[in-house]
Amino acid sequence: PMQAGLGTPDAIFDIGKNKRVTVRQFRNVNLIDIREYYLDNSTGEMRPGKKGISLTEDLYDEFLKHRLNIDEALRRL
Amino acid sequence: PMQAGLGTPDAIFDIGKNKRVTVRQFRNVNLIDIREYYLDNSTGEMRPGKKGISLTEDLYDEFLKHRLNIDEALRRL
Repeated sequence: PMQAGLGTPDAIFDIGKNKRVTVRQFRNVNLIDIREYYLDNSTGEMRPGKKGISLTEDLYDEFLKHRLNIDEALRRL
Repeated sequence: PMQAGLGTPDAIFDIGKNKRVTVRQFRNVNLIDIREYYLDNSTGEMRPGKKGISLTEDLYDEFLKHRLNIDEALRRL
């Protein structure tokens, strides 16, 4: 899970009802986090769950470079 | 981790030395999995680790729709 120490996200994008992409900087490294969230009943707030991954901006760019190939692979399924 | 039961990936894309995007179909649902991998010393093969997330094609499309906003958020960091 994303701990408080990892910095408050600068931007939050909802993808589906319980998944979010967040953008933040931690120790001068830009991070894009794609993660499941759950409703914390005690506070009524959405909290980051265990399922997810943080990509540095470099790896995020690398991921986007594969976009057309990913689309092609999806079309082949 | 991705279990054998979740289907063999149709396509594998390396992003960085220990992260992969895989594309596969499971129960007629197209999945894009973004995940850390580790070297299994007993077999010499790369194996999926715990850190990662599987997105359905719908959520993947939703994610890509936020691409420009994510880029903008990164520029603001």
